[in-house]
Amino acid sequence: MTIIYAIDLLGTMVFAISGAMAGHRKGIDIFGATFMAFVTAIGGGSLRDVFLNIRPVWVEDGNYMLAIFLGVFISVIANKQLYSLAKTLTLFDAIGIGFFTVVGTEKSLDFGSSEMAAIMLGMFSASMGGVIRDVLINETPLILRKEIYASACLSGALLFVLLHYWGVDNGWNAFLSATLVFLIRIVSVRFNLSLPVVEMKKDSDL
Amino acid sequence: MTIIYAIDLLGTMVFAISGAMAGHRKGIDIFGATFMAFVTAIGGGSLRDVFLNIRPVWVEDGNYMLAIFLGVFISVIANKQLYSLAKTLTLFDAIGIGFFTVVGTEKSLDFGSSEMAAIMLGMFSASMGGVIRDVLINETPLILRKEIYASACLSGALLFVLLHYWGVDNGWNAFLSATLVFLIRIVSVRFNLSLPVVEMKKDSDL
Amino acid sequence: MTIIYAIDLLGTMVFAISGAMAGHRKGIDIFGATFMAFVTAIGGGSLRDVFLNIRPVWVEDGNYMLAIFLGVFISVIANKQLYSLAKTLTLFDAIGIGFFTVVGTEKSLDFGSSEMAAIMLGMFSASMGGVIRDVLINETPLILRKEIYASACLSGALLFVLLHYWGVDNGWNAFLSATLVFLIRIVSVRFNLSLPVVEMKKDSDL
Repeated sequence: MTIIYAIDLLGTMVFAISGAMAGHRKGIDIFGATFMAFVTAIGGGSLRDVFLNIRPVWVEDGNYMLAIFLGVFISVIANKQLYSLAKTLTLFDAIGIGFFTVVGTEKSLDFGSSEMAAIMLGMFSASMGGVIRDVLINETPLILRKEIYASACLSGALLFVLLHYWGVDNGWNAFLSATLVFLIRIVSVRFNLSLPVVEMKKDSDL
Repeated sequence: MTIIYAIDLLGTMVFAISGAMAGHRKGIDIFGATFMAFVTAIGGGSLRDVFLNIRPVWVEDGNYMLAIFLGVFISVIANKQLYSLAKTLTLFDAIGIGFFTVVGTEKSLDFGSSEMAAIMLGMFSASMGGVIRDVLINETPLILRKEIYASACLSGALLFVLLHYWGVDNGWNAFLSATLVFLIRIVSVRFNLSLPVVEMKKDSDL
Repeated sequence: MTIIYAIDLLGTMVFAISGAMAGHRKGIDIFGATFMAFVTAIGGGSLRDVFLNIRPVWVEDGNYMLAIFLGVFISVIANKQLYSLAKTLTLFDAIGIGFFTVVGTEKSLDFGSSEMAAIMLGMFSASMGGVIRDVLINETPLILRKEIYASACLSGALLFVLLHYWGVDNGWNAFLSATLVFLIRIVSVRFNLSLPVVEMKKDSDL
């Protein structure tokens, strides 16, 4: 429990850094950047909880807010060093989405969602924070660009639900599913992989 | 009940197709397109349920997820044929928004919303999925373009609330109100109608 | 209670005017403008309530809908006069966000959120309506531009939580905190102030 809790806070902080950095890049002041950090860090999990009709965890547990403020602080004092860490951050992000996918899928199943909805909600938990961040700064969301991101999360959520269905121990399941998300994401970034697109005339207006 | 349920699933599938096609058009991979299909299909109804503080129906009923996956599948295997069907899809969409407006308004009244809020929530149910779809692909939402869309939904929701207030049987009410939405939408597309706009200097900054 | 209720309705109307005017400026028809007015007026408070897992007040209380429709009506019949009132509207908006910040922070504390979450939710209540409005018309949200807006709300929410913690009477607390938001916002607009930005290479891609 304490390890999962610690990783959850760490993931929140990593996403807060990514949101705050997006704000700095756009020339937004530090309070605006704090706003960006907040919606990026809590967006995905909160949307999942709202759909499950439960209260998001950060509303009552102040530690999540501290993790976000810490992320903003790091983004301000270490923004130059963070550039050289860009690859490290992709690594952290990959760990983060792996973990958030698993936590999101498990929590959805625990609160009585169907298996299929749990897969979508697991993917949502991991990716919607970034989607909201990108929509706010008026960029095409990462999840909709030619990168393997949504698919990594979907694969991990699918594996978790399958292993859960087959009665695999939750700890091992979490480890294996998060690792799958991580590996797909890292390998696809490393080798610049992308998935097939359905060919269409771009100017068609359906 | 079974007919309404079937139409609800059909509407979900039609909206999923429209979301997935928007993804294909933008060159998004199939998992990204699945994401688009999902938010388009469940966006409006989910927002309504979240405001009513109840759990969206797709969280527990896996059939809605199947309808969405089926919609994505159709958009992939039949994307060329869907062009020639464009007018048919406008037709389906008009049926869909008619039905979703009625279901949304009725559900809101059932769960204790005021009449006026029910009208807005009915319009929301029918139109917010498309709004989210268009915001994600960075286009001006259809509802905000010079087309009669929001107004068709608002009219139907208003009629439903009025007939409900006057004690008209729910079945007839649903049929009449959905038909009104459908007719307004189809006639306005056919004859390229639009509503008056309040004239303003475009560069004013209020 | 009646004064707070009246101000809440007045604030809702002011935000509805601002949403409808944004719609008129973009050449959206009057139903689309009503839609814009609605999401602008109820966006922030609704999001706060959704995170607190309670039902937004406008769902049951029809007066909020009347306030919104009145705002739309005013924006239609008085849109020319509203230009000359632009400064007055900035004034009203500043009063509005001051009040909404205080109401949002207090309601969050009342419903058991942590102090830190209450500060974020207070800022959310005041600013998210405008964010949604700007995202819908495809503009960079005001909160993310070089203006002191989020920071005014954050300061007021922080003051409210501090005075609340120190046992200051709620009425005085509300008055002082709302005044702080108002003053920071008005002074910063008057003297064109902005906050420091973290310097970054704009083309970096983290």
